[in-house]
Amino acid sequence: MVRKKKKDFVNFGVIGLGMGRGHLEGYLRAPNAKVIGIADINEDRLKDCKEHYGIEKAFKDYKELLALKEIDAVSVAVPNYLHKPITIDALNAGKHVMVEKPMALNAKEGQEMLDSAKKNGLKLMLHFNNRYRGDVQVIKRYVDAGDLVIYTLSKTGWIRRRGVPGAGSWFCDKALSGGGPLIDLGVHVIDMTMYMMGSPKPVSVMGSTVQGFPEYTKHGKFDVEDFASAYIRFSNGATMAVEVSWAMNCQTEKQYSEIFGTKAGASLSPLIIWAEKDGNLIDIEPRNPKGLSQFQHFAECILEDKTPISSGEDGVLMMKILDAIYASAEKGKEIAIK
Amino acid sequence: MVRKKKKDFVNFGVIGLGMGRGHLEGYLRAPNAKVIGIADINEDRLKDCKEHYGIEKAFKDYKELLALKEIDAVSVAVPNYLHKPITIDALNAGKHVMVEKPMALNAKEGQEMLDSAKKNGLKLMLHFNNRYRGDVQVIKRYVDAGDLVIYTLSKTGWIRRRGVPGAGSWFCDKALSGGGPLIDLGVHVIDMTMYMMGSPKPVSVMGSTVQGFPEYTKHGKFDVEDFASAYIRFSNGATMAVEVSWAMNCQTEKQYSEIFGTKAGASLSPLIIWAEKDGNLIDIEPRNPKGLSQFQHFAECILEDKTPISSGEDGVLMMKILDAIYASAEKGKEIAIK
Amino acid sequence: MVRKKKKDFVNFGVIGLGMGRGHLEGYLRAPNAKVIGIADINEDRLKDCKEHYGIEKAFKDYKELLALKEIDAVSVAVPNYLHKPITIDALNAGKHVMVEKPMALNAKEGQEMLDSAKKNGLKLMLHFNNRYRGDVQVIKRYVDAGDLVIYTLSKTGWIRRRGVPGAGSWFCDKALSGGGPLIDLGVHVIDMTMYMMGSPKPVSVMGSTVQGFPEYTKHGKFDVEDFASAYIRFSNGATMAVEVSWAMNCQTEKQYSEIFGTKAGASLSPLIIWAEKDGNLIDIEPRNPKGLSQFQHFAECILEDKTPISSGEDGVLMMKILDAIYASAEKGKEIAIK
Amino acid sequence: MVRKKKKDFVNFGVIGLGMGRGHLEGYLRAPNAKVIGIADINEDRLKDCKEHYGIEKAFKDYKELLALKEIDAVSVAVPNYLHKPITIDALNAGKHVMVEKPMALNAKEGQEMLDSAKKNGLKLMLHFNNRYRGDVQVIKRYVDAGDLVIYTLSKTGWIRRRGVPGAGSWFCDKALSGGGPLIDLGVHVIDMTMYMMGSPKPVSVMGSTVQGFPEYTKHGKFDVEDFASAYIRFSNGATMAVEVSWAMNCQTEKQYSEIFGTKAGASLSPLIIWAEKDGNLIDIEPRNPKGLSQFQHFAECILEDKTPISSGEDGVLMMKILDAIYASAEKGKEIAIK
Amino acid sequence: MVRKKKKDFVNFGVIGLGMGRGHLEGYLRAPNAKVIGIADINEDRLKDCKEHYGIEKAFKDYKELLALKEIDAVSVAVPNYLHKPITIDALNAGKHVMVEKPMALNAKEGQEMLDSAKKNGLKLMLHFNNRYRGDVQVIKRYVDAGDLVIYTLSKTGWIRRRGVPGAGSWFCDKALSGGGPLIDLGVHVIDMTMYMMGSPKPVSVMGSTVQGFPEYTKHGKFDVEDFASAYIRFSNGATMAVEVSWAMNCQTEKQYSEIFGTKAGASLSPLIIWAEKDGNLIDIEPRNPKGLSQFQHFAECILEDKTPISSGEDGVLMMKILDAIYASAEKGKEIAIK
Amino acid sequence: MVRKKKKDFVNFGVIGLGMGRGHLEGYLRAPNAKVIGIADINEDRLKDCKEHYGIEKAFKDYKELLALKEIDAVSVAVPNYLHKPITIDALNAGKHVMVEKPMALNAKEGQEMLDSAKKNGLKLMLHFNNRYRGDVQVIKRYVDAGDLVIYTLSKTGWIRRRGVPGAGSWFCDKALSGGGPLIDLGVHVIDMTMYMMGSPKPVSVMGSTVQGFPEYTKHGKFDVEDFASAYIRFSNGATMAVEVSWAMNCQTEKQYSEIFGTKAGASLSPLIIWAEKDGNLIDIEPRNPKGLSQFQHFAECILEDKTPISSGEDGVLMMKILDAIYASAEKGKEIAIK
Repeated sequence: MVRKKKKDFVNFGVIGLGMGRGHLEGYLRAPNAKVIGIADINEDRLKDCKEHYGIEKAFKDYKELLALKEIDAVSVAVPNYLHKPITIDALNAGKHVMVEKPMALNAKEGQEMLDSAKKNGLKLMLHFNNRYRGDVQVIKRYVDAGDLVIYTLSKTGWIRRRGVPGAGSWFCDKALSGGGPLIDLGVHVIDMTMYMMGSPKPVSVMGSTVQGFPEYTKHGKFDVEDFASAYIRFSNGATMAVEVSWAMNCQTEKQYSEIFGTKAGASLSPLIIWAEKDGNLIDIEPRNPKGLSQFQHFAECILEDKTPISSGEDGVLMMKILDAIYASAEKGKEIAIK
Repeated sequence: MVRKKKKDFVNFGVIGLGMGRGHLEGYLRAPNAKVIGIADINEDRLKDCKEHYGIEKAFKDYKELLALKEIDAVSVAVPNYLHKPITIDALNAGKHVMVEKPMALNAKEGQEMLDSAKKNGLKLMLHFNNRYRGDVQVIKRYVDAGDLVIYTLSKTGWIRRRGVPGAGSWFCDKALSGGGPLIDLGVHVIDMTMYMMGSPKPVSVMGSTVQGFPEYTKHGKFDVEDFASAYIRFSNGATMAVEVSWAMNCQTEKQYSEIFGTKAGASLSPLIIWAEKDGNLIDIEPRNPKGLSQFQHFAECILEDKTPISSGEDGVLMMKILDAIYASAEKGKEIAIK
Repeated sequence: MVRKKKKDFVNFGVIGLGMGRGHLEGYLRAPNAKVIGIADINEDRLKDCKEHYGIEKAFKDYKELLALKEIDAVSVAVPNYLHKPITIDALNAGKHVMVEKPMALNAKEGQEMLDSAKKNGLKLMLHFNNRYRGDVQVIKRYVDAGDLVIYTLSKTGWIRRRGVPGAGSWFCDKALSGGGPLIDLGVHVIDMTMYMMGSPKPVSVMGSTVQGFPEYTKHGKFDVEDFASAYIRFSNGATMAVEVSWAMNCQTEKQYSEIFGTKAGASLSPLIIWAEKDGNLIDIEPRNPKGLSQFQHFAECILEDKTPISSGEDGVLMMKILDAIYASAEKGKEIAIK
Repeated sequence: MVRKKKKDFVNFGVIGLGMGRGHLEGYLRAPNAKVIGIADINEDRLKDCKEHYGIEKAFKDYKELLALKEIDAVSVAVPNYLHKPITIDALNAGKHVMVEKPMALNAKEGQEMLDSAKKNGLKLMLHFNNRYRGDVQVIKRYVDAGDLVIYTLSKTGWIRRRGVPGAGSWFCDKALSGGGPLIDLGVHVIDMTMYMMGSPKPVSVMGSTVQGFPEYTKHGKFDVEDFASAYIRFSNGATMAVEVSWAMNCQTEKQYSEIFGTKAGASLSPLIIWAEKDGNLIDIEPRNPKGLSQFQHFAECILEDKTPISSGEDGVLMMKILDAIYASAEKGKEIAIK
Repeated sequence: MVRKKKKDFVNFGVIGLGMGRGHLEGYLRAPNAKVIGIADINEDRLKDCKEHYGIEKAFKDYKELLALKEIDAVSVAVPNYLHKPITIDALNAGKHVMVEKPMALNAKEGQEMLDSAKKNGLKLMLHFNNRYRGDVQVIKRYVDAGDLVIYTLSKTGWIRRRGVPGAGSWFCDKALSGGGPLIDLGVHVIDMTMYMMGSPKPVSVMGSTVQGFPEYTKHGKFDVEDFASAYIRFSNGATMAVEVSWAMNCQTEKQYSEIFGTKAGASLSPLIIWAEKDGNLIDIEPRNPKGLSQFQHFAECILEDKTPISSGEDGVLMMKILDAIYASAEKGKEIAIK
Repeated sequence: MVRKKKKDFVNFGVIGLGMGRGHLEGYLRAPNAKVIGIADINEDRLKDCKEHYGIEKAFKDYKELLALKEIDAVSVAVPNYLHKPITIDALNAGKHVMVEKPMALNAKEGQEMLDSAKKNGLKLMLHFNNRYRGDVQVIKRYVDAGDLVIYTLSKTGWIRRRGVPGAGSWFCDKALSGGGPLIDLGVHVIDMTMYMMGSPKPVSVMGSTVQGFPEYTKHGKFDVEDFASAYIRFSNGATMAVEVSWAMNCQTEKQYSEIFGTKAGASLSPLIIWAEKDGNLIDIEPRNPKGLSQFQHFAECILEDKTPISSGEDGVLMMKILDAIYASAEKGKEIAIK
């Protein structure tokens, strides 16, 4: 159901208003998007959004939302274990889908979602919001200039001293979330770093996960890791060292990404390009770089039949990496990514 | 030729006065050491040290030094490829040996040196000077207190933006040095981090080395890496991420080591212990911790027949790790450490 | 009228809604407290609180509040000269009382209040809020560990360059306030420092008060000091140097407390423990220590018949110290505390 | 033996070359002073100074120095217990004297020295070097302008976390030194603060001394305090809070002096005047104020028959204050200064 | 129509509610001013102010406002090209006028306005708000003290990296605005610096203006400069260097003014007086200096028949300077100010 | 006596060893230069340099130096009034000359020197050392890239709060020096800023000089300015604001240069390029840029017959600018540069 070019906006629905509130606001700000309806099983949240944003159609059951003909596309922003079933329902109902990260509980589920999108001839976009940040785009642009930077080593991390999501929440139950900080935070930093490096092909990983804080297990089910590290090898010889934590005995909180190339290096947080010009070392500091709206971008991809910057394929690949890190941590050996 | 207990000092010789000048001064400051003689093929250096420190016996040929009966032990501080032959000559001449890091060009050489020391019933100590630093000792003591910290993840690095040893020097010729920044700088930071972690047993590694600056190859032989990364897995599940460079597009220079445990974490540079007490997070900052003299320690080990803090076994293990990282970088896969 | 154990909350009234608004909010947040009624002679304030917090019973005359049978306890948060009469009325009406600091205009008044509490068999708690701060509790816990710190010297202060309470207010009229910054600010910092030191027994004081800014006397009655200093000696040989000001020619504003012991020292603002471990000096910096709710604590003391952390006895002792400092300043000599 | 006005320089001798080396260099730099001879019982030190500064006359026995007719004045820079006997010998030999601080072991000794100076009609100057500092002079000048600042409160201190003079030295033996950090460091900061305040008359003191570090007593005689505090009252109602330590659990090292007046306040370290002008608060920061040479000043006082900025009377008064603080610490009560 | 002394407040009208909203609020806060009516051609703005501030009389046509007999004075806060006609209408209607800066499009217009004020015997005040700032007044007071500072050199600027007023606005059309950042920002900084210098008489100028950013011309008419510099010479030999920009490749934004005299110098942003006292260099930093209300001042000038701190003559002189800088930039030579 | 190409070094002499000591050391470090002889009328200085640097030929009379046939070129580093006569003597003796800045007392003298160089067919190089600084070269290179930056405004300064050369020195006597800080410091900063701007042609100047500190005139002849400002207009419309001082009431010391172009701007101290890339503002900070050796450069110019980076023509032009500023300050009007 590809949009005809003469239409100049897309009608959206949003499923899940916890995390999805950001999606809702994103579509409302985008000049080429309209929000037709919303859905959430939490009735308070549903009522609150309906009134606050003036959305007419609000459903407890997302299937009623999917039944609306005028809706072209939906955002799926629900707990991880529901990503697959709702996304496939939406695709089968003829809607393009933007799904929250991580794509699913594992790569197998992700692949099924992608297959469904292809079968239905619809867009499946991943909500990898960091790719759209101004600083990430600046570095990506340096890389795309090609003759400037060929990245060979990288490291990234998102660590918190104490920052476990609410005890007893679905985040801490592996059956519902797929994992802990690796799948929650790692998905962000690994994806954005690979993206900036020009999306090299991952070949294999080694990883380690730790459950180090018994006290967290007292408040409900908690069978995911507290912190983890990994090392990823790419087909072009590049590598990436990764560390993530919800709780670790370290400094308060830090998110970073550094990539080192043969012509230049780059760092996010702070944003800096380490380079050389005329034989002198120079540091380049972009000031207030402008980001993109992923919501406007999604609408454009639908209207102009383009592949999203963060595609379903990117989502599946990320799940393969995460699956492999968990497997490596469990088996204590390198795991290849096929 | 183990010292009898009644003697209260050890007679030393120093072979190699480039790097070895520090050894010479170290022994001169130690209350339980005397310096009897020195040797260096560079005659200017030899004459300069002889006069400056008032050492009577100075030889161009180290074998003349080894022939002196009154010498109990020697330091071997020469280019890497000479570590093995001179150390074995010294051991066969009945001298205890302290050898500069890295122990040798590879683990096989290191093992031969260790075998010789055992056969001759003599001490073989590694010059892992960082183990003796005050800040490293402080963290080591926290670990040894046992109930305080069990380390599970770690990361360490020594990176320089532009800091390649003099073009055309033996450092850049793999046949003479064994490798580049990994063997030159990595040996320091990997060893001291493992030491602080309580010396867990390494099981396997993944690694990557890069030659990214063609200009360095213009001034003479340069067949070693410019920068490298690695990931080490230990038998207790702990891991270590490593990065080293002589030249990389990154910030100016940085040496660091961070280890994260389930009861506390620790960082060198700056020195800080991240811990928890009575339910409150606390940061502990030791002020001006006192280090040890490795030269005095070596003399003590000889006089009291003790195993050095940095033993020949430690040296061989480190060579196995470095060999494995180079092999992993070459073959593009995990390499087990036997 | 001690609460029976089966009851699990306490019914409160609040008298005085200027400073007492904090009390009102404190009780509303406490899980073991309910607020039944409020009283204030200022009708605007009364109406505003009644509506904003949804309190049904609101009286201009506090005696009507005291007549409510269902009220177990009251907060008295009125100008200093009213502390005694209202507290005694409340105690005689069978209510437990939390009274704002300073307890009264002087120790004699304070003693009468305490006698009344004892006679009526009721709790009398002082609103020494600093005792409940997270940083103060952290240091107190170090002291209570006993073998760690025995404090011997201390200093504390709360100084402002220009920060006199509104000209013409009751704060500046000694008959209504009991004194200036010494009784207003000094009561806080002296009490919290003594509390952290393990509540040593004060023996004697020397003090000095200054009226240095004639311009403040132009806007109404102003017969209290602008700034003051004191020195307190304790029976265990410890001492405390104190400085306070509403107006003094000094840096902008500073509140501090430092205590020096033979095993460790401690500072608030910034929070730091100066200690020694294994022969190395260490600085310990607790991060975001959690405080206690004094309102919840007061309810607990009533429900479980415990002595408050800040008792009526503490309040009387503080008044004796303040009386002695004013006497010393006036007579120019050491004054003993009986 | 007062100098006649026509002479334009003074001939000096220096007794004691440990601390006195500074005196020697001070006189050598002063345009109105000549150094004729030196004396020290330590022969190495004597020989070293003789050669290094080219002083012809050097004696092991200070009496030989005093016997030199051409010498007009001497500096006495020896351990505290020798101040009195050598100063009186020098005065009796007709020499003006500059004596190191503290003047003597106690006020009684100081008074005898002063009496001897008066009897002999000679200058007795105290080496209170801080009075001559540029920053101290700046503040003193503001005070002397009179209508600007009337000081009423002050505080001063010199504290060290660990800074005890060498174990086993005369500093730690009360019979030789008169006391610990109070007499060693306190003499400096109390004197310079009083001097800046316009030399008010001290009336009484309270004080406390602590011996808190048993380990220091292991290396020889150590019967002095490790740290101390005091509170001084002046006849004009002003007060001074004092703290000093050689060893205390506090921040590393700090020397400060703050005085608060009704028209302005002043701080040393950093140097700042807190004032008001035209109704606006202003901070005044003098840049690199120039100090005076006390050695040139002493020569001037002799040549022009003036009273030194730091006179023998100042020295005796300081001893009375120190005696009183020690007495107050011992007896646990206020001690008057007569 | 000079006010009689017995009246103690002035009735105001405000014309133009974009920039004039600040005038409106200024009069409302002034104790000697009342606001009777407002006028603006933008009806939304008019309605909004009428309701928000409770002003009864609100007109789209300013002439209706001028027809109100009870109004004594008006503020004219409209685009630059309307300053002259509306001001002259108001003066002819018998109203005192405060006019926004710059006074007019050029000095000729300004002079006509001033002539009209004189002819009508009414006050004409310029809205040079910076003259009334606390920091400017502090420096002015130092200058007026006379013996303190005689200024000889100065420099001032207001530069922005990217800060052009909205594309297509009247600011960018020279026929409506009179010029770009020189007339918009330069008028502020030149006036306040001259004011602080004691209003020396300008003799001639050199200047340069640049249109460097072609992209700004794409959004509508843009025929003014992007940045400019100038150099002004005064009859007492003093000079002023000026730089202004709406867009320039420089640091983000900076406004400054520094004046250098023979006895002292002064800087705004940060506020500091560089001086000398008793031979020592001192830096004086006033803290939070209090400013004046120009609206209260204007009412006072009317009630007490005084000349405003920022008079019509000041306005005309400023226009002459700006005219001369533009002429110098165009002709490439020095232009005299007559 | 132009060098033939086959020779690969130049023989130098240095005249004047006060400032010229830097020249001497510069030539000694240059691989293509040899120092044959030195000359100075101060015999101590001459002897000291002769011995310290091992220079054989040392003369009190520079004419003896010039008589040495083997010398190809000389540095003239003497007080300003001697620049012309010695330079012309040297040129007439067939030596190439590097002369210290400022070139001469005025442009007329400078022109005579240049004429002599041309007549003799020899190099005349100016010691404008700042042109050779690494940071200046970096900016120059950006300008030379042409399409990057077209500079239109600039400002530069070198100001000192109190930094007058020794009282009574030749620096303060206009007949010997040509002027004060304008000719001493201004020559540096004006030249380097013009150089970075691509050497635009100066058209006219306005300037002002001040003698503001009468105390400096007490120690000897002092008939030069203490501080000065100027404004220079170039033929391409660019301008430069200049300020210099030996003594001015300002911040301690500051040297700066900022140039603002339509594509980018640049600052020295700190070194930063303000630019724009892909619509984002970026700041570029070169790290440790490498400078050039002007002494090696001079030798190269001689050996390869090239025009120096800082030529005699540059020196004459600078003298014309300085002459014009002094004339403008005296006459109070714009002065054209011919």
